[in-house]
Amino acid sequence: MSALVASGKTKELYTTDDPKVLRVHYTNHTTAGDGERNEMIPDKGAVNNEISSLIFGYLNQKGVATHFVKQLDATDQLNLSVKMIPLEVVVRNLSSGHFQKRYGTEYLQPLSRPVVEYFFKSDELHDPMINDSAAEALNIATEAQLKTMRETALKVNDLMKSLFKSMNIILVDFKIEFGITDDGQVILADEISPDSCRLLDADTKQSLDKDVFRKQTGDMMTGYREILDKLKATLK
Amino acid sequence: MSALVASGKTKELYTTDDPKVLRVHYTNHTTAGDGERNEMIPDKGAVNNEISSLIFGYLNQKGVATHFVKQLDATDQLNLSVKMIPLEVVVRNLSSGHFQKRYGTEYLQPLSRPVVEYFFKSDELHDPMINDSAAEALNIATEAQLKTMRETALKVNDLMKSLFKSMNIILVDFKIEFGITDDGQVILADEISPDSCRLLDADTKQSLDKDVFRKQTGDMMTGYREILDKLKATLK
Repeated sequence: MSALVASGKTKELYTTDDPKVLRVHYTNHTTAGDGERNEMIPDKGAVNNEISSLIFGYLNQKGVATHFVKQLDATDQLNLSVKMIPLEVVVRNLSSGHFQKRYGTEYLQPLSRPVVEYFFKSDELHDPMINDSAAEALNIATEAQLKTMRETALKVNDLMKSLFKSMNIILVDFKIEFGITDDGQVILADEISPDSCRLLDADTKQSLDKDVFRKQTGDMMTGYREILDKLKATLK
Repeated sequence: MSALVASGKTKELYTTDDPKVLRVHYTNHTTAGDGERNEMIPDKGAVNNEISSLIFGYLNQKGVATHFVKQLDATDQLNLSVKMIPLEVVVRNLSSGHFQKRYGTEYLQPLSRPVVEYFFKSDELHDPMINDSAAEALNIATEAQLKTMRETALKVNDLMKSLFKSMNIILVDFKIEFGITDDGQVILADEISPDSCRLLDADTKQSLDKDVFRKQTGDMMTGYREILDKLKATLK
């Protein structure tokens, strides 16, 4: 017996025999422009399922508490069932995307420290930026939860930066999300994939991530497959 | 000898005989809608000069380090010359204005703690919201300066809330700015007036601030004069 629990923009969540574990199915949906574009890109679900499984497995090994249990098959994985905190946590090493536009910086301008930003997940409100005091004041997260998220985000950044560096890839920025377990622990959840990271070939500065789809500059899956191949070679 | 040093949206700064002190002239300019509206409202400069002088005098007395030296005449005051930090620091006790719109909250919705937000002062970029890590990463302010600003903002909020409460007025939110002295101290600068605060009659919930001008709901100066009269009666 397996029932659909929830359906997001790119993933479907199903029950399993274990009430503490969900089966997560990665779809081929690819969105951009605050949901304005939504296309099916063949094989994307499978590639992202495999990439996210490899990265979460690596983070688990390095002592980061995550929801990841194991990869099941090409498109599915098992994750702990958690109550999601409705915040997108963005970590930036170089200026790009919304940050670049918001503050009038240059593309790939170095930042004198990693930036950690929170965005309140709300389609209706277009995911507005939010700071600690507002997230606390609106009871979106507690001070302790925000501290755990920020510290974990910076640790994940350090681990991922060095992982990708060993693959000759630059980690520009990424988005993660967190969930709360039954016993109140805040753990890393959702996915980490080229859908949610900006990754550049260190030599050519070519995008190996969803920016290829956002900016329509080529075949997005070429970069995704390169990331997967390099992760497999590095983590095995 | 007195030379114009700088000219803002509502104030003009002139040199004095003392290089550490500026004469600040309050004009009648009144702006709204990100500068789209800019009108001259008779007597506004004088009333705000007097209100800001009274509030800054009160804060000085209560141990807050500010740039305020003394009121000179109807429209002018003497302030310490400081290097302004290009951040607007907004403190909110109840939901209103941009916050209400950004997070889809109700007008005057209570917040479970005071919110402190930073906005990067840039006409070109329309004063985007910024958090601590981004302000540090872009070298706009240091971690220590941001900490001082936040702590001072919360102290000013406590002092102003109780001051206005004694006048039967609710302090909804306000905006302040900070400057750095020659010896590196971060002190409260700019002005505090109904231009930069939301103030409501506690009984009628009527606005006694610039919202009357923003929303064009009546004669703005009636509220400004009520604030001044009550401050005079309370602080003398």
